Amino acid sequence: MSRDFLYNEIANGIVIQITGGVLQPGDKLPSVRMLCKEHGISMNTAKRVFLELEAQSLIDSKPQSGYFVSRLPYQKLPLPEVSRPSSLANSNEPNELISKVYGNMGNSGLTLFSISAPSGELLPLAKLKKEIVHATRELREGGTAYEPLQGNVKLRRMIAVRSLAWGGNLHENDLVTTGGAMNAVSLCLMALVKPGDTVAVESPCYPGILQLAISLGCKILELPTHPVTGLEIDALKEALPRIDICLLVPNFNTPLGSCMPDEHKKGVVALLAKHHIPLIEDDIYGDLYFGTQRPKCCKAFDKEGNVLWCGSVSKTLAPGYRVGWVAPGKYKEKLLKLKLIHSISSPSIMQEAVANFVTTGKYENHLRQLRRTVEDNYQNYLRAIAQYFPEGTKTSRPQGGLSLWVEFNKGIDTAKLYDLAIKQGICIAPGRMFTLQDQFENCMRLCIGLRWSDELKFKLKQLGNLAKMA
Amino acid sequence: MSRDFLYNEIANGIVIQITGGVLQPGDKLPSVRMLCKEHGISMNTAKRVFLELEAQSLIDSKPQSGYFVSRLPYQKLPLPEVSRPSSLANSNEPNELISKVYGNMGNSGLTLFSISAPSGELLPLAKLKKEIVHATRELREGGTAYEPLQGNVKLRRMIAVRSLAWGGNLHENDLVTTGGAMNAVSLCLMALVKPGDTVAVESPCYPGILQLAISLGCKILELPTHPVTGLEIDALKEALPRIDICLLVPNFNTPLGSCMPDEHKKGVVALLAKHHIPLIEDDIYGDLYFGTQRPKCCKAFDKEGNVLWCGSVSKTLAPGYRVGWVAPGKYKEKLLKLKLIHSISSPSIMQEAVANFVTTGKYENHLRQLRRTVEDNYQNYLRAIAQYFPEGTKTSRPQGGLSLWVEFNKGIDTAKLYDLAIKQGICIAPGRMFTLQDQFENCMRLCIGLRWSDELKFKLKQLGNLAKMA
Repeated sequence: MSRDFLYNEIANGIVIQITGGVLQPGDKLPSVRMLCKEHGISMNTAKRVFLELEAQSLIDSKPQSGYFVSRLPYQKLPLPEVSRPSSLANSNEPNELISKVYGNMGNSGLTLFSISAPSGELLPLAKLKKEIVHATRELREGGTAYEPLQGNVKLRRMIAVRSLAWGGNLHENDLVTTGGAMNAVSLCLMALVKPGDTVAVESPCYPGILQLAISLGCKILELPTHPVTGLEIDALKEALPRIDICLLVPNFNTPLGSCMPDEHKKGVVALLAKHHIPLIEDDIYGDLYFGTQRPKCCKAFDKEGNVLWCGSVSKTLAPGYRVGWVAPGKYKEKLLKLKLIHSISSPSIMQEAVANFVTTGKYENHLRQLRRTVEDNYQNYLRAIAQYFPEGTKTSRPQGGLSLWVEFNKGIDTAKLYDLAIKQGICIAPGRMFTLQDQFENCMRLCIGLRWSDELKFKLKQLGNLAKMA
Repeated sequence: MSRDFLYNEIANGIVIQITGGVLQPGDKLPSVRMLCKEHGISMNTAKRVFLELEAQSLIDSKPQSGYFVSRLPYQKLPLPEVSRPSSLANSNEPNELISKVYGNMGNSGLTLFSISAPSGELLPLAKLKKEIVHATRELREGGTAYEPLQGNVKLRRMIAVRSLAWGGNLHENDLVTTGGAMNAVSLCLMALVKPGDTVAVESPCYPGILQLAISLGCKILELPTHPVTGLEIDALKEALPRIDICLLVPNFNTPLGSCMPDEHKKGVVALLAKHHIPLIEDDIYGDLYFGTQRPKCCKAFDKEGNVLWCGSVSKTLAPGYRVGWVAPGKYKEKLLKLKLIHSISSPSIMQEAVANFVTTGKYENHLRQLRRTVEDNYQNYLRAIAQYFPEGTKTSRPQGGLSLWVEFNKGIDTAKLYDLAIKQGICIAPGRMFTLQDQFENCMRLCIGLRWSDELKFKLKQLGNLAKMA
């Protein structure tokens, strides 16, 4: 619930004008200055109105010209509602479903809409091979020696440099490398929780996070989440007395693709710090923004070292390299000890290869291209869904990341759709995987990180037809 | 105490003859057949007598000729006593000492007697680099894709093939790859224990194992351990009612270098199975035997899937690759789930490189050479210690592995010796690191996996001089 925020009210007024047809595709919107005058609001508030509408893909900005009503066809696909999970800490794990879906990982005979990783066809494979060879030459003893516990210093330096883009001001010494981001999140949780503690998460939520917290003996509290602006702060406020730790994916999380506005991030960080509740921030999708600017991280507003910021290159460069990291704030020593205990050190060669790939500017070039490709994909998916999926289908409005969340009418059970689709070589991620409660049975996640093709379009058509029959 | 075993009594008689000078270096011993007749014992018992003496480095076997009193000079270095840790579950962690010693890891300006890994100079670096390049070519998508959860199948197949040498009969499907052996042990412990459980270990024990068990909320029971034959079975028997899980390094463990005789292994496996206590077997040093045959593993006697056998190439080939594995017996599903939760998958390239290195026979060639080098080292160390260390110094008799355990007279505090030695560029591992109790203060571990040189000999001389002054 964002009733606190004036800009939402004004934005809603414009949404009604667009969806009601008062404003037509291509129409110019009033300027920021005009909006200020009209509503008696500040420049900042006016800008936020447009950002909110842009985030919903209802308007486009054109440099030096202003804002226009979007011409894309997917405005007819409505947005899912804000999620309303039960406030009880449930633990009804969808184990069977998860095993079934994950069991197909790596099966090259299937169209894997179910994953949340970029297709290998979108990765700079030849350049990476060269970096690996280069790394074996550069590293002491060819990378066979135990690496210092904190991890490759060149990589940590590059992550620190890149943190400027999202408002971080990290130093290489603030960072610890890990075996991918989930390994970072795992170390953070192990450092901070004891059995019986309650972990607050977004809903729907990445199944790996739910499984990890449960395996450490924690209770899970799923919180209402807006498909565009992410976690609902009012809901978090209410739940505070019951929460021991908060674990969020604020930027383009999976499966929703929501992105918390800066104000929300700032608010959440302050709120949690005040109540001495640590925040684990999983930022694996932050670099995959579709707009012109990388979103900030909660860590950017962290004054007390209370935010443990986790990242990796698994969603952008090389899932199989298992290169991740964490800036654990004031929990660094605890985290280093756990890293030593559970894994001694990280593989050197992969980290060195990634560090060099970043240092030489190749990573930024690759990201630029990948972002464009995924955004194009996203729009292609929306067109196909609008064309082929049953009446009443809703979709999220990711402004980055690799996931599209699809909500069917209540009658359609995506667990059953999974069984039908897999027979046609199509693998989806049913919505029930992303919660411990009885919800999202009519939802599914689609990966938009596959390479677009006529065949992929045809697979979406097949999927739509199956859903229509279900 | 091995009073149960007749062969020990006969062996002790011969030990007295050797140490008393009745039998001189180079003298031939009675044959197996003669020993049978003389004592009215079976062939098997007679063979065990010689094995025990060989394990103590008092005799050497010469093919087709029989057994001879060893000519090596280190017979004057006596063996440390069987350890007698308190039977209370202590948890007095030597954290400060461990941080100090581990903080020097990777410092190339120091002589690192403190580590337990082969020096890079003993590794086939050029060949490994080629394997890495080859792996990036062979793997689907150059190794950037998520690997199937269970791990590289080629690697698992090679580990299964190699298991024949130690009495295992593993199938590739019995194995799961991990990020090194400690990561395997960590997954095993997480799969099996709950906070408050008691873990039985050898004493002295690798600090990483102690830290891991404590971090999972377990109590530790250190058990009496013989410097040659390892864990004392009688002590284990007595402690059984208080134990929830047993974690052993039966082959050439660090720091003692002890190796449990087959009979002991068989006995321990049967005993634990009968009492439904799982056994985690850490077998990272098993391939580094000095004799003619690889020792068996406890897993070889496991009929019920109750033994979780862990291994890696960190002690033989490439510590920095983080390639390990586990055959988790009946706990496989639990283990796979934990691997998924904590790390998603393993880095592909390192596993593929190691798999190819093994497949092409390069690993066996390398091991043959490494074993010879480390055994030569061991004998050089003993000579230097006999020459330079204070009167009364005792040493273990490793028949494999990378560690030599040195016991000084009670007055010498190795924590203080550490501080003196580090000023001269020498880093040792003080004995107190290897226990949670107040013991081993006059002991230290030396790595015998460094490259032997005049300089190294001089460092041992310096160390001996410092100990004499301490």
